[in-house]
Amino acid sequence: MTDATAAMAAAKNLKSFVDVAPESDFPIQNIPFGIFSTEADATPRVGTAIGEFVVDLAALAAEGLFSCCSTFGPEATAAFQSTTLNHYMSLGRPAWTEARRRIQQLLSIDEPTLRDNEALRARVLIHRTGVSMHMPARIGDYTDFYSSKEHATNVGIMFRGKDNALMPNWLHLPVGYHGRASSVVVTGTPLTRPSGQVLPMDAQVPVFSASKQVDIELEVAFLVGPSNKLGQPVPIERAHDHIFGLLLMNDWSARDIQRWEYVPLGPFLAKNFGTTVSPWVVTLEALEPFLTNGPAQTDPAPMPYLTYNGPATYDIQLEALLKPKESADYQRICLTNFKHLYWSMRQQLAHHTINGCNLQTGDLLASGTISGPTPESFGSLLELTWRGTNPIQFPDDVKRTFLQDGDSVVIRGAAQGDGFRIGFGDCEGTILPAVAGLNQ
Amino acid sequence: MTDATAAMAAAKNLKSFVDVAPESDFPIQNIPFGIFSTEADATPRVGTAIGEFVVDLAALAAEGLFSCCSTFGPEATAAFQSTTLNHYMSLGRPAWTEARRRIQQLLSIDEPTLRDNEALRARVLIHRTGVSMHMPARIGDYTDFYSSKEHATNVGIMFRGKDNALMPNWLHLPVGYHGRASSVVVTGTPLTRPSGQVLPMDAQVPVFSASKQVDIELEVAFLVGPSNKLGQPVPIERAHDHIFGLLLMNDWSARDIQRWEYVPLGPFLAKNFGTTVSPWVVTLEALEPFLTNGPAQTDPAPMPYLTYNGPATYDIQLEALLKPKESADYQRICLTNFKHLYWSMRQQLAHHTINGCNLQTGDLLASGTISGPTPESFGSLLELTWRGTNPIQFPDDVKRTFLQDGDSVVIRGAAQGDGFRIGFGDCEGTILPAVAGLNQ
Repeated sequence: MTDATAAMAAAKNLKSFVDVAPESDFPIQNIPFGIFSTEADATPRVGTAIGEFVVDLAALAAEGLFSCCSTFGPEATAAFQSTTLNHYMSLGRPAWTEARRRIQQLLSIDEPTLRDNEALRARVLIHRTGVSMHMPARIGDYTDFYSSKEHATNVGIMFRGKDNALMPNWLHLPVGYHGRASSVVVTGTPLTRPSGQVLPMDAQVPVFSASKQVDIELEVAFLVGPSNKLGQPVPIERAHDHIFGLLLMNDWSARDIQRWEYVPLGPFLAKNFGTTVSPWVVTLEALEPFLTNGPAQTDPAPMPYLTYNGPATYDIQLEALLKPKESADYQRICLTNFKHLYWSMRQQLAHHTINGCNLQTGDLLASGTISGPTPESFGSLLELTWRGTNPIQFPDDVKRTFLQDGDSVVIRGAAQGDGFRIGFGDCEGTILPAVAGLNQ
Repeated sequence: MTDATAAMAAAKNLKSFVDVAPESDFPIQNIPFGIFSTEADATPRVGTAIGEFVVDLAALAAEGLFSCCSTFGPEATAAFQSTTLNHYMSLGRPAWTEARRRIQQLLSIDEPTLRDNEALRARVLIHRTGVSMHMPARIGDYTDFYSSKEHATNVGIMFRGKDNALMPNWLHLPVGYHGRASSVVVTGTPLTRPSGQVLPMDAQVPVFSASKQVDIELEVAFLVGPSNKLGQPVPIERAHDHIFGLLLMNDWSARDIQRWEYVPLGPFLAKNFGTTVSPWVVTLEALEPFLTNGPAQTDPAPMPYLTYNGPATYDIQLEALLKPKESADYQRICLTNFKHLYWSMRQQLAHHTINGCNLQTGDLLASGTISGPTPESFGSLLELTWRGTNPIQFPDDVKRTFLQDGDSVVIRGAAQGDGFRIGFGDCEGTILPAVAGLNQ
């Protein structure tokens, strides 16, 4: 029996006294972490989600309900009464495991502490319609990888032709670059269409314009738990000790700005006007039943520092949906899976630190666009419309190549278990009109 | 009379009761800001430098000596008793101007408050040999530009030949990319030689190796003062309101790692193993006597959002010195000037925010390597040795192309005024041997 099979068997038997619909992202098997506030108490604090409810973990800690945890107990109040997850994420896996078990126990159908205390339940179980979600972490540095072979190949074919689609380094290392941390926002934050320099087709001289090619990138990111010191690489076997959990991410991209600016130092203003993440961080523990192997890496085999024997990725179905401003409904435009990624999170983290680079608690490391092998599984409009040549059809003869003002996009993801599903909540954003009068 | 001439005339007459040698970086005209601690009080706090002394601004604030400042006074204690400059930098120019004037007044030869109070003087004036300097800011995001035309041209000639030296976008916009904030360290912090993948000459397949081409990049960086909101560009006329002050910077670079990894998304592990900054932040106010015009920008003229009428750069002489491990002494390897940069800080900041990107207090924006027009003024070993083909000679037949273990580099800079000079202190670092056994 594999670790994943054992984890699935163990998870299957958990049951909460809180009603959870089978299609909910948040059964007792999940226990994601996020930062929320309420109208009655506007101070952001740590919560988890179960069914239709947010559980106020700060309040549970204040009640002393984690004092039984030998590792986590002494940190519980400070960690859960914090305005970000950084304190909690810095504690490391033994504390995380203990806290998670205790939360599951408190929410269990067999445990009377919360189940039978109506006053406490009323205080700590808040219906999700009554909460505001905030950025889950204070992000130090944000790194974006480029780890989908299908995405890198598609982009390579479009921009360099079939024969040079993948760069020579791509199969040897997880290509990545530094992104902008300040403009990472939580789901529901609208973003202004960026303006800047673009080079019209067949022109030699750029013009100033609002971007006409605002795109999405469907990604999954992870948050770093404990830091490593500058000068001290993290071996791939210990990489998971530094990974707290996963988020969904939309790395909005202005393709016309990108095309003009990105040689030779990479994307800059085309990306840093905004990046949206889901409100809930799903832990590796919750995803353990879905551990699976990624694509074979044999030609070439990775170098020893990138070699890990064992399943290192997760079976998480992902989708992107678009709601044109003319429409009332979202329509799915992409269905893909996290397991398609060529480079695993372990490999990304081992590579990122092999030179001694210090990752710090709260750093965000993202996958890059996750495209699968079929056209329906491409994770960007650039690929889905093949550079705008093949518009997506919506009802009432509405079409889209890139995003128009007022368009909304949501990314969703979930791992389907045996009678339960582990999800992230929505990662949603809407494009607002560009700032007027910038170039006068 | 220009602003610079007037500022020089005003500065000339200032005199402190503290003895300051003419060649000191820190006359009363400077008043740089930094974070220091002492053996007696290990809590980092804000100080300034004058001559051979560090002035404990936290102690001056605790004495109530800023209560006469209408704007800055209410913030003085919190701003100066902080472990970073971020609080102070967030206050903006009216508070900075007021605080600077008051500090200059307290250090003036005509002002008895400190001059005639021996006990207070003994407490707040600490000889620099008795202090440890810390990172001046909690950096949010770090952006590195590529704003020296000479540097971009040199690199272009080496890697792409003379005909395509400058990329088509280079003269239209200040090319920049996101760097790594976590590994920015203060002067005196040794750095470990990075290991990673490199592609041997004429090979098709990379090998794992400690970098054999560790280089320097002589740069000047600035720290952001007040933030701008996401979606709200900063017009170039107001760019200086968001610039607190300047630092010297060495953007250490592993050229062999860079060459293999950087296409298409830019440098990553080649740069993020460490970046060194000077301990003292020199304010724009101190540099005002040295305001000057940068290179002409006529072919092409910049777009309106990048156009600023007036001097926008500063005459600051910069040098890099290298001490091979075999030597006792530093030898100068580069002499250049900040004013050679093609793109100004105003232009960099206006460009960075034109898409709505939010800069935040403490963000670090760097110039890129500052090379001048002559071979002695090139700001990297890559250029100085022309890709290693022309080694630098040191006494006793010691030669260097790139850095060896135990080599130290210091970057210094100063603006020479009429009887005083405005400097930054040393920006120094030493390369330690690579971590052993990484690839076993």
